[in-house]
Amino acid sequence: MSDTATGSDDGASTAATAPPNDHPMDPIFHPRATAIIGVPSTKRDSGGAPSSFLGALLEMNYEENHGLYPVNPKMDEVEGLTCYPSLLDTPDPVDHVISMVPARVVPMLVDQCVEKGVRSLHLFTAGFAETGDPELVAQEEAMIKKLTDAGIRAIGPNCMGLYVPSERVAFMNGFPTEPGNVFLLSQSGANAGDIIHGLARRGVRFSKGVSFGNGADVKAHHLLDYAASDPETEVVVGYMEGVQEGRLFFDALKRCARVKPTVILKGGIHAAGARAANSHTGSLAGSIEVFESACRQAGAMRAETMDDLQDLVVALTTSAKNVDGDGVVLVSGGGGYAVLASDAIATAGLDVPQMPPDTVEALREFIPVAGTSVNNPIDTNVRGEEDLKRTLDIVARSAPADVVFTNAGDLGDRDPEEEDLPREERIERAEERSRHAARAIAELQESTGTPFVAIARSRSSSEIAAKASDAYGLEAHKHGVAMFPNVARAARAVGLINTWRARRKGLPALF
Amino acid sequence: MSDTATGSDDGASTAATAPPNDHPMDPIFHPRATAIIGVPSTKRDSGGAPSSFLGALLEMNYEENHGLYPVNPKMDEVEGLTCYPSLLDTPDPVDHVISMVPARVVPMLVDQCVEKGVRSLHLFTAGFAETGDPELVAQEEAMIKKLTDAGIRAIGPNCMGLYVPSERVAFMNGFPTEPGNVFLLSQSGANAGDIIHGLARRGVRFSKGVSFGNGADVKAHHLLDYAASDPETEVVVGYMEGVQEGRLFFDALKRCARVKPTVILKGGIHAAGARAANSHTGSLAGSIEVFESACRQAGAMRAETMDDLQDLVVALTTSAKNVDGDGVVLVSGGGGYAVLASDAIATAGLDVPQMPPDTVEALREFIPVAGTSVNNPIDTNVRGEEDLKRTLDIVARSAPADVVFTNAGDLGDRDPEEEDLPREERIERAEERSRHAARAIAELQESTGTPFVAIARSRSSSEIAAKASDAYGLEAHKHGVAMFPNVARAARAVGLINTWRARRKGLPALF
Repeated sequence: MSDTATGSDDGASTAATAPPNDHPMDPIFHPRATAIIGVPSTKRDSGGAPSSFLGALLEMNYEENHGLYPVNPKMDEVEGLTCYPSLLDTPDPVDHVISMVPARVVPMLVDQCVEKGVRSLHLFTAGFAETGDPELVAQEEAMIKKLTDAGIRAIGPNCMGLYVPSERVAFMNGFPTEPGNVFLLSQSGANAGDIIHGLARRGVRFSKGVSFGNGADVKAHHLLDYAASDPETEVVVGYMEGVQEGRLFFDALKRCARVKPTVILKGGIHAAGARAANSHTGSLAGSIEVFESACRQAGAMRAETMDDLQDLVVALTTSAKNVDGDGVVLVSGGGGYAVLASDAIATAGLDVPQMPPDTVEALREFIPVAGTSVNNPIDTNVRGEEDLKRTLDIVARSAPADVVFTNAGDLGDRDPEEEDLPREERIERAEERSRHAARAIAELQESTGTPFVAIARSRSSSEIAAKASDAYGLEAHKHGVAMFPNVARAARAVGLINTWRARRKGLPALF
Repeated sequence: MSDTATGSDDGASTAATAPPNDHPMDPIFHPRATAIIGVPSTKRDSGGAPSSFLGALLEMNYEENHGLYPVNPKMDEVEGLTCYPSLLDTPDPVDHVISMVPARVVPMLVDQCVEKGVRSLHLFTAGFAETGDPELVAQEEAMIKKLTDAGIRAIGPNCMGLYVPSERVAFMNGFPTEPGNVFLLSQSGANAGDIIHGLARRGVRFSKGVSFGNGADVKAHHLLDYAASDPETEVVVGYMEGVQEGRLFFDALKRCARVKPTVILKGGIHAAGARAANSHTGSLAGSIEVFESACRQAGAMRAETMDDLQDLVVALTTSAKNVDGDGVVLVSGGGGYAVLASDAIATAGLDVPQMPPDTVEALREFIPVAGTSVNNPIDTNVRGEEDLKRTLDIVARSAPADVVFTNAGDLGDRDPEEEDLPREERIERAEERSRHAARAIAELQESTGTPFVAIARSRSSSEIAAKASDAYGLEAHKHGVAMFPNVARAARAVGLINTWRARRKGLPALF
């Protein structure tokens, strides 16, 4: 039993109550109007095509309470909006400019931004320093100098720019419209998109996200500094390919990780990846040992893979962050599954401790002997919601239980007549059953005081199973329970949190 | 470029042409009639409930050309079949008996099996040696002795029994009806089901599968010995929790792995897993170092996880088994994705070699500079099928390419009007596009002589994306191309095959 009580973190509530942010970078995240220069003449694209900035902003309804000005001299109108021949022809004020024009046109656009008095220029445009061409490197430098002198911040080049749900700003389709408490910085636009889409499906919501590419002006340390002081942000997560201005970066990482859980995934850790990083964002990858030790000293977490990164964010936004100890009780049907799951838990450095006699006795009262185990892992073959809840309640209150792993979807009795219903109704029922099961787990977590972790497990690849699993994950996360795709990933995330907490000894506790 | 030519292995063709098998265990796999003792009165269950042996056999249409005799004194009929009061009341002959009765009734059933003259008794019934109760251990021993004396083979207790697609025998719903070339042995029924379902979705088909639980009579070494000599079997895969009769096991593993690629996953490698294994199948797990070294000496592969096991079988039934070298060319859109993918490839011990000047030149002819890389990883942003095929053809013929990793589904141009079509038609079109793309990759593999590996990659969790991905995997596998869920798993599987091949030096080449 653990008393690390597990309040639910409904990230969506944060933004509304957040105090104002007086950080000098804050205005970038609140553009009153945005112009998109070189907007293409495509129709609204629901497939999330990377160049569809206009589509993404329209999907967020940005234009409802902000100015949105497509610029393309070849069109008068696009998607029902007036299309302007140049930035200088757009109404005032324009705070944010998205450049989709070719690199050779950018110098002219920079002059226009200065003349227009914008606050920030986001260069989706690629083909500068990352090419390695000395002339283009110099061109990037000159352009940034001109912008900086005029007090304009540049994001990029070679990136996807801003995601600010509270301001209805997004750079890809399908991003959540509700704001949350996670701040994302990423040198890669594609990885930023994967992180936002992937975590959104698991219930995570974001305060802000920035894809900053080459980092010619705005760099990781500026964003970490901002995130540390941003009242809307409670968890910080980053994807980086190279460290720029190492000392400033390390200081900012330290400041940020001191006050908020901070997770960084570093790409380019092997020679092959480093070469790819250099060609991608012009980054010099540097030694991963140095980076790892910087994270360790700063009290930040280094994610080793994209899965790590996403799993750690899920853990840090649920009760999984409170697991303080290595005792996992695994409640699971299927003996062979339980064997492999126990191995996976041990591989992650955690334990599957035996249950004390009183727990075993309490379980044996209603669980038959044959083909079951009431020791840990618990393999009960228990059918019916009440008996399973009774099992979970008993084991969560046992002394060795620091966390209970349970299969998502085991709860919620099924109506045998259901198979004859129409598809939509079957989906709806399965989703509702999942939500019911997730709430039941959250209630057990609340009443026992022990963190629960749900494991997605489905032998079926059917649409209904997939939708039911998604519904479970969303509802569980809403109530402060993490769901992971399998036991190995759940155990690894919990193990990494344990290690991180132990290393932070001496730094202020974050929760 | 590699000349390890890559013929397609259509597993389904093997069974039809296989010569007869005179191994003494072979009759077990050809039961002329099967009786199910203690069959429950449930209706046919499409959910794959473990106890639904009757449902699984009916789904395979076993009864069409075999005798199928449910036995339950409380019913006259079940699922349209005559239900008999006891085994002794069923028609002759009965070759195979499935016991679903409680353990206490089994001794009587054993006597009836002897009297009836059956060939094999499959004990789904649990509650024997795995309980650790000395009385039940002794009971299991006595029962096996009686069966052995009568020439009857016992499978189990505490297991799911037989899967023989060519004889229409299955133990769970949803198993493929077509036979293939992979033999599965598994102590766990749930894991056997996960392996068969999981691999079936990826295009793998099975010669036979046996879930053998406690292994009181039929043990791993019997099954390995059979698999080694079975003409229908080309690849052998096993899940085990404990090694019984170590010397016999090691000899059988050696015989089998000498003539067929053999992959074994050992559960219970940590203390927690070992305890679970003991409670599950009464197995004493033993040291994993000893097991690892036995596999190594025998020329078998040890899978460390269920993912490993499935990925290795996919690799061994496609051209991925022929990759002979560590040079991976990765063709992939998305710079940040390419960076992480390169890291994952290097983590698996493989390389992402730079492309030689002539390859770079050939690519630069039609690929623009900005935002792309024509060195490896290749990040082209190429649109359109012909340009992508041209890219793949050029890199596959480059000297450093031992294998080409390509994203599944990148090929096949999409009709922009498609989104307005009804759901079923959109799915059908997406699936057909996937199959078309998979065939195009198989053709490139054929024409260049370099193995290709497809990586499933979808940002969307939509039903259409999932079905399209499944369709790609099936079609690719049919044409000898492996698909893996992500780059890390693809690289790991290829790396493990490379290591295994190197270790087998001295043993006869298998392909």
